Amino acid sequence: MPLSQSPTWSDPRPEFAFIDWVAQRCIDRPEVVLGIGDDAAILKGTSNIEWVTTVDVLTSGVHFTPDTSPQLIGRKAMCVNLSDIGAMGATPCAAFVGIVLPRSWERDQVEELYDGIFEQAQLWNVEIAGGDTNSWDGPLVISITLTGTVESGRAIRRDGAKAGDWIFVTGNLGGSFPSQRHLTFTPRIREAAALKNAVNLHAMLDVSDGITSDLFHILNRSGVGAILNGNAIPIHEDLPASLEASERLRHALTDGEDFELLFTVSAEDGQRLLDQSPIEIPLTKIGEITAEQTASIMRNDKIYPLNRSGWSHQFGTSSHSS
Amino acid sequence: MPLSQSPTWSDPRPEFAFIDWVAQRCIDRPEVVLGIGDDAAILKGTSNIEWVTTVDVLTSGVHFTPDTSPQLIGRKAMCVNLSDIGAMGATPCAAFVGIVLPRSWERDQVEELYDGIFEQAQLWNVEIAGGDTNSWDGPLVISITLTGTVESGRAIRRDGAKAGDWIFVTGNLGGSFPSQRHLTFTPRIREAAALKNAVNLHAMLDVSDGITSDLFHILNRSGVGAILNGNAIPIHEDLPASLEASERLRHALTDGEDFELLFTVSAEDGQRLLDQSPIEIPLTKIGEITAEQTASIMRNDKIYPLNRSGWSHQFGTSSHSS
Repeated sequence: MPLSQSPTWSDPRPEFAFIDWVAQRCIDRPEVVLGIGDDAAILKGTSNIEWVTTVDVLTSGVHFTPDTSPQLIGRKAMCVNLSDIGAMGATPCAAFVGIVLPRSWERDQVEELYDGIFEQAQLWNVEIAGGDTNSWDGPLVISITLTGTVESGRAIRRDGAKAGDWIFVTGNLGGSFPSQRHLTFTPRIREAAALKNAVNLHAMLDVSDGITSDLFHILNRSGVGAILNGNAIPIHEDLPASLEASERLRHALTDGEDFELLFTVSAEDGQRLLDQSPIEIPLTKIGEITAEQTASIMRNDKIYPLNRSGWSHQFGTSSHSS
Repeated sequence: MPLSQSPTWSDPRPEFAFIDWVAQRCIDRPEVVLGIGDDAAILKGTSNIEWVTTVDVLTSGVHFTPDTSPQLIGRKAMCVNLSDIGAMGATPCAAFVGIVLPRSWERDQVEELYDGIFEQAQLWNVEIAGGDTNSWDGPLVISITLTGTVESGRAIRRDGAKAGDWIFVTGNLGGSFPSQRHLTFTPRIREAAALKNAVNLHAMLDVSDGITSDLFHILNRSGVGAILNGNAIPIHEDLPASLEASERLRHALTDGEDFELLFTVSAEDGQRLLDQSPIEIPLTKIGEITAEQTASIMRNDKIYPLNRSGWSHQFGTSSHSS
């Protein structure tokens, strides 16, 4: 599969098709150091810092359910953005909060929603610098734009992976939705900072769509391929032990909403991380970057192709179809 | 009426109550020069420039109707933000576009929506630097965060009005919704720049909620009062001539979505603007800033109190109630 091929409109995930389409039609401003297509954009700051900015929109029925507590919704709306800023190796600073409230909501619910936002804003030292609140007859929508700072030239982008790099992931993967972990996760801001301090991070992002899908962002942007070690993928305990091993792996690769860090470093730095991890959560080498622009996963001595959406593969012995 | 009094939750416009409530609970970051409560926040940039950032969320049934063309929706979503950036005396630069699409939308509709966004982005030299697109079973929601640049310390805020200032408005007011002008207006970016270049603008904002309502933002922030000349308010031709004069005035003051510039300058600068306007659209002196923190409007030699929401007043001779 040619990795340079743009996703088409038939891509089941229209957001990726849009990003390429938008990027092609976009004008370039000199103040914008890095435009659309990474976890966040980079804008010129002072001589020492750059601004790193990201937006995420959360909707009822997609990112939370009608019975999710408003506090957890506000929390998640901040945390998904905090996770993006962390994955750039940046420090969160200011948030712009756009909210469309159901007209039926009582003051208590609105305050709880804001409580979730403020709790995270205070925890991560973020100023709510702007906002727009409306109400309507539809369900809740919350759109947060978060901006952070990074030392100039030191943001960790998706385009820096090199052949021979080792691929790492923090934490454990899979089962985030059924366990509700997607509402209570901790954005890996501290871990990103500690890793950045310890080694030379070549490429990094946060795992929002599942690592197979997210890995392709790095591969596409960096013009490289990868081989994953299917036996090394750290499976989250949220996935029931009663599931077949191949099913657990499939979930870990494709469930998404893990909000862990996926990154690449040189083999030398990789070995350093294995010898002494600078973070307190699990840190696992899950594969290597290859010069050949293909993506595959090895499991039980067999090699299977990976594709962007990840979930069309079977890891059992009966099917190798992609 | 004490202008320093915070709006309460009984305020019919919850967005204003929220802004104060949020501002009170907010932490302050040194990188944020101006936080919530103006047309846009100001963030530190290079030594020469600052970043000016605003967010607006548009929803079906509130800011457009289900039969509004997607192109005009995309256009408006950009223009309301462009208007805010212009009203800060800043130059638009980069946009972050959050969209929630109805699942029923066809590709054509989505492309038209983006056409409206891109048309304005190209016209005003704005890079689409980030975005998040989702789809759901609900109606369209579009949230754009726009950031622009301004020479450091030269953003026009709401808090600089001084007693004795003259109050001006660009263009004509009223009737924006029924005429659909709210979908096709031109953001006053060029006019703001020309005015800023010609005189010392003390306070400025864009008229989104109606000038009485918006004027109170300036009065509150600046700690001053105002008296408007009801006979001078420039009435838009979109308001039918068949309406009674007092009704036309009421619409002009309170309809909102005019997206004209409301600003104050010294009397000396005001006279300069009257002698030679630097802009090609109408420019009208509509009142003066007073030291006494009250707000009123004079019409046909009678004085009526103004209130925040503006629309509870009658300008006929039969009622003076506020």
